[in-house]
Amino acid sequence: MPATIDADLFRSLLRRHAAGVVVITAPGPTRPAGFTATSFTSVSLAPPLVSFCLDRRSSSWPALETAEHVGVHVLTEAQEEVARRFATSGIDRFAAPLNWSAGPHAVPMLDGVLAVLVCRVAERVHAGDHAIVLAEPIHGEHSDGAPLLYHNGRYLKAA
Amino acid sequence: MPATIDADLFRSLLRRHAAGVVVITAPGPTRPAGFTATSFTSVSLAPPLVSFCLDRRSSSWPALETAEHVGVHVLTEAQEEVARRFATSGIDRFAAPLNWSAGPHAVPMLDGVLAVLVCRVAERVHAGDHAIVLAEPIHGEHSDGAPLLYHNGRYLKAA
Repeated sequence: MPATIDADLFRSLLRRHAAGVVVITAPGPTRPAGFTATSFTSVSLAPPLVSFCLDRRSSSWPALETAEHVGVHVLTEAQEEVARRFATSGIDRFAAPLNWSAGPHAVPMLDGVLAVLVCRVAERVHAGDHAIVLAEPIHGEHSDGAPLLYHNGRYLKAA
Repeated sequence: MPATIDADLFRSLLRRHAAGVVVITAPGPTRPAGFTATSFTSVSLAPPLVSFCLDRRSSSWPALETAEHVGVHVLTEAQEEVARRFATSGIDRFAAPLNWSAGPHAVPMLDGVLAVLVCRVAERVHAGDHAIVLAEPIHGEHSDGAPLLYHNGRYLKAA
């Protein structure tokens, strides 16, 4: 048995796993930063902690490496375009027609999401080429609706 | 603004998030251990790393605290019963009619799943009342099908 699996098999295995889609935002040193993630999860109930992962070679890492607060936005099934926008390189991800405003601690808050958690960054754990960001929710808002999902390279809705 | 959000609001926010469903297994010191999780995610591509979270007060923690290898099973939409079994307390979760066998490093391998990753445990990061388990995949198998999802307290299929 090899010491580890090869990259192609690893990707094939991961494509089987489905995940909810979130957009993480941070004030950023000069302008807002934000990116789409499928790695969001709750970690602890007492104290409340959530986590998400980020590639340390990504354009959002400089902002996330120093951010004291972040926003986690759970997208609705109607927000596939928002997910694509925050996964696209070389554009101003916060440009119109996106509707957003500055929330607590200057965290960018996106309109129309299923839930938003404004969090204090508690810890950044380096793990391979990524970092696991642990964050403590300090403010939250939610609405009702169905979530956007990602599976096998495609955005999906729940049945 | 309070220092942190209260437990009821935190749970309401988390119910909006959808997740794929996995079962984690480990050989255990005396008998196999296993539990249902919605916190599985990939973490790093180079080296390959995945993670999942576990309550350190749970019945599976003694096995996971010492396990050198674990199995991560991505469930299909037909395996809601398997998900419920591995989330039920006070039963033998590996009893018939569950079909499983011992795989590499004695890791229990469940039949009929969408994907299984046999992993070497790389690190356990304590975070609040839970631990984040970081694991390096060393063996993987997959099939085709649709994943089982969990959202708002219910198991779902993708549309």
